Amino acid sequence: MNMEFKNLDQLNTYPALQEAGAKAYPLRELLTKERVEEYGCTIPLPSNESLTYNYAAKDVDPTVLALLQALAEESHLVEKYRLLLSGEIMNTGEGRKVLHHLTRGEQAGPVLEGEKDLSAFYRQQLMRFQDFANKVHQGEITTRSGKDFDTVVQIGIGGSDLGPRALYLALEQFMGTPKMKAHFISNVDPDDAAAILRVIDPETTMFILVSKSGTTQETLTNEALVINKLQEAGIQEPRKQLVCVTSETSPLAKSKEYLDSFFIDDYIGGRFSSTSAVGGVVLSLAFGPEVFTQILSGAQAGDASALEPNARNNPALMDALLGVWERNFRGYTSTAILPYSQALSRFPAHLQQADMESNGKQVNRFGEQVGYSTGPVLFGEPGTNGQHSFYQLLHQGTDIIPLQFIGFLQNQTGVDTSFEGSSSQQKLNANLAAQIIAFALGQNHENPNKQFPGGRPVSLILAKRLTPRVLGALLAHYENKIMFQGFLWNLNSFDQEGVQLGKVLTNQVLGSADIHPALESYATMLGAR
Amino acid sequence: MNMEFKNLDQLNTYPALQEAGAKAYPLRELLTKERVEEYGCTIPLPSNESLTYNYAAKDVDPTVLALLQALAEESHLVEKYRLLLSGEIMNTGEGRKVLHHLTRGEQAGPVLEGEKDLSAFYRQQLMRFQDFANKVHQGEITTRSGKDFDTVVQIGIGGSDLGPRALYLALEQFMGTPKMKAHFISNVDPDDAAAILRVIDPETTMFILVSKSGTTQETLTNEALVINKLQEAGIQEPRKQLVCVTSETSPLAKSKEYLDSFFIDDYIGGRFSSTSAVGGVVLSLAFGPEVFTQILSGAQAGDASALEPNARNNPALMDALLGVWERNFRGYTSTAILPYSQALSRFPAHLQQADMESNGKQVNRFGEQVGYSTGPVLFGEPGTNGQHSFYQLLHQGTDIIPLQFIGFLQNQTGVDTSFEGSSSQQKLNANLAAQIIAFALGQNHENPNKQFPGGRPVSLILAKRLTPRVLGALLAHYENKIMFQGFLWNLNSFDQEGVQLGKVLTNQVLGSADIHPALESYATMLGAR
Repeated sequence: MNMEFKNLDQLNTYPALQEAGAKAYPLRELLTKERVEEYGCTIPLPSNESLTYNYAAKDVDPTVLALLQALAEESHLVEKYRLLLSGEIMNTGEGRKVLHHLTRGEQAGPVLEGEKDLSAFYRQQLMRFQDFANKVHQGEITTRSGKDFDTVVQIGIGGSDLGPRALYLALEQFMGTPKMKAHFISNVDPDDAAAILRVIDPETTMFILVSKSGTTQETLTNEALVINKLQEAGIQEPRKQLVCVTSETSPLAKSKEYLDSFFIDDYIGGRFSSTSAVGGVVLSLAFGPEVFTQILSGAQAGDASALEPNARNNPALMDALLGVWERNFRGYTSTAILPYSQALSRFPAHLQQADMESNGKQVNRFGEQVGYSTGPVLFGEPGTNGQHSFYQLLHQGTDIIPLQFIGFLQNQTGVDTSFEGSSSQQKLNANLAAQIIAFALGQNHENPNKQFPGGRPVSLILAKRLTPRVLGALLAHYENKIMFQGFLWNLNSFDQEGVQLGKVLTNQVLGSADIHPALESYATMLGAR
Repeated sequence: MNMEFKNLDQLNTYPALQEAGAKAYPLRELLTKERVEEYGCTIPLPSNESLTYNYAAKDVDPTVLALLQALAEESHLVEKYRLLLSGEIMNTGEGRKVLHHLTRGEQAGPVLEGEKDLSAFYRQQLMRFQDFANKVHQGEITTRSGKDFDTVVQIGIGGSDLGPRALYLALEQFMGTPKMKAHFISNVDPDDAAAILRVIDPETTMFILVSKSGTTQETLTNEALVINKLQEAGIQEPRKQLVCVTSETSPLAKSKEYLDSFFIDDYIGGRFSSTSAVGGVVLSLAFGPEVFTQILSGAQAGDASALEPNARNNPALMDALLGVWERNFRGYTSTAILPYSQALSRFPAHLQQADMESNGKQVNRFGEQVGYSTGPVLFGEPGTNGQHSFYQLLHQGTDIIPLQFIGFLQNQTGVDTSFEGSSSQQKLNANLAAQIIAFALGQNHENPNKQFPGGRPVSLILAKRLTPRVLGALLAHYENKIMFQGFLWNLNSFDQEGVQLGKVLTNQVLGSADIHPALESYATMLGAR
């Protein structure tokens, strides 16, 4: 098997796809009832749940799909995924394995590092923090004054914030009353911490400090604000209300002052860490360990489905291929992610990080400049809200922006009401169905201002209800889509060198040595120096 | 004066700008300390406040700026703004005046419609709802059982939600303890209302129903959920806790069941309605009428500054011109809006609507297809959060995405702490200054993976502190920028025909007549039919 890592434009399929990309795909003819039924694939989940990806309203035909399948094979996408699962160094720049899949179970046997079984390490951490959460819930772990903890605040930024926060919000209503209410502090803007610290009771709140390196500026600064607050409230040994999620070698891990510490390692990037202790501690505390286990089992099923070589049976693979089709062969520069579920209000922000930080790169895994477009801009807000906002541009703007909808047959709370003959949930989904058709097919009108060109490619991710398992599968779907696209573009999707320069310059501003005159001017203007 | 409305590409300046757009503008040479000081313009505000727009890190030189000034003059941008202010029909498709500026004061004398003085109408509504808010705060208007209202919930979607919500969040911490806590319900997803209705006390909560037409599906459906909730809580005549913001001719206005009603008219589009009763009622209730008056005075100052013909002294005009430069002559398809203030967390979502719904169009004001790009995709999240997320793509992705930062010298709460020698606010702004330089100048590195190409155009909007007046000026800045860009592209920025088709198809799904087979399939799949 030829497992060379080639650039997208070096592949044999590339010219054929370029040719195909220049053709028209009139959805008004292509989008039949039969195609809606045929162009879908499903991730089966435990307990008879499932997640379906439907791509009937994409600007493709069977020829294009065949070419994309050939591309997947020529690019060895599933084999590269297997390599990753088996512990190969896929984060090439940093010389690291990429093991977030292992946090939800083995897909390809154990991964060893020397003598160390790495899945055993993740399993051990999982057991430790689930046990910890149980003890908190059962009142075995309490405040210094013996009270129950009723609130948890996660302090972290980027991957230590967006994923866990999105997952918490996704299930908060589903759970009815969470075991512990969760809040999140991320920004170094002190108003972020202040807003949360005003509404919590310092005495009964546990804080989780999440930083893999243990040196994240925002997180340590916010820790200082929290410690101040606890001390003001007269709490002795305030760090006994803090737990850490960090790497075993970080400065945080060495401190004995904290209530407890749970560990991650360098093989799990921040944006892929929701199923590790980074998401697991806060979600287990908020919802209970069994709910977090369900999230893991959904993600595991998603990971398993991504092993299927035929893209028609592999939602993540098909989604990845269609994204590259749109970006590189159709020339679309952005993608909108539009969940028709208020519970997913911050899920697009998480995906924005996961996708744009992974594949927003211009050198390939060997450090060579690539000659094609890589990761698109990704943005989104929940529907129907977006319909009354930026959809105007999506329908009638001068650029075509592919859309991905996420929908559920049932809402989360079960609260609903019938009004004018339909429930809110029915209206929500009637809107969703209507938008798919409006974007794909458009509408001719004698008044050009009321003309809808259509031809906007649309996909739909659908499940019965947004349960913990479905949420896990959804998360894994996107993580695996991003991974496959990184393979297609021949990128290292697992580093983020683009964040470094800002850090260096920030430290220059905060230091006293001479700095670039324009930086000096801006820093002075902003009162930072 | 030739006031023809010409397409951008029919203007004499267009070819020269095309030529200029093809050249390189090496920011490493251009971005000097002197330029940082020179390339800025300021909106002076009452009480010695001000708002500054700095464009030193944009990819322009003096020649380009001169061309853009010539474009502004040839396109009669300020004259068209004066026309709009004077009550000309600028929403051509719908045959309406465009009068949101008038809600904060006259810039060009009174606007009459027949005998009716329209500014008197807006003033009257302002007085009415400010008087109403005072009476609520003073306990003259109470619940049926004589209790004080302590909470207010706005029910509205799109323009009736995003702007007012963004403004509320922007000042919530600044105010310390608001007079009334505000919440917002928008989505037809019943989980949105459920989440809010769980945390409020139905007895002491006032609801504001905001719908210009009085027929918005989401809003009326959410009203039904709220009425259910109030009835379940044993409240008689639940609509006596609801006030309406609607047009005088709407079905809502005719009902006598509501506690009170405040009026808007067809001359104020939803996305420009934050300074009308749409934003005014909730903000006056939450913060007090005097705070809303300060917002208006800031917006009025912004509107006044937009009358200045020289773009170097007119922030909104300069921002608009540079945006068109980037979109049409540099070929950039998206813009990121990045506030370094947690208080502005939802401000980008408001701007996303204001901008993309106004200028996401492909026909000009005469209904003719335009041959150039119009409104870009606009997205953003607060910094420093974004730095740990999607900035990777902005720094090292294959597309150039212009960035606009918003910063403040001081934070809102006054709570801060020194950690490792600097305050959080200093760190926040050190990061901001560092990012400007990192994006504009980049960094050469032997390792291509650590190479930053730079040349990402950046602007900065800056004020001392995010006060109500500064917030008003910021709002007006963007509204006026969007208006000027609409003039440049020769669009009608004030209609939104692109939202209509979805409504029609939604009603088809919820009805019983035959529908398009693919729509039928999706609707069935989603349980909506």
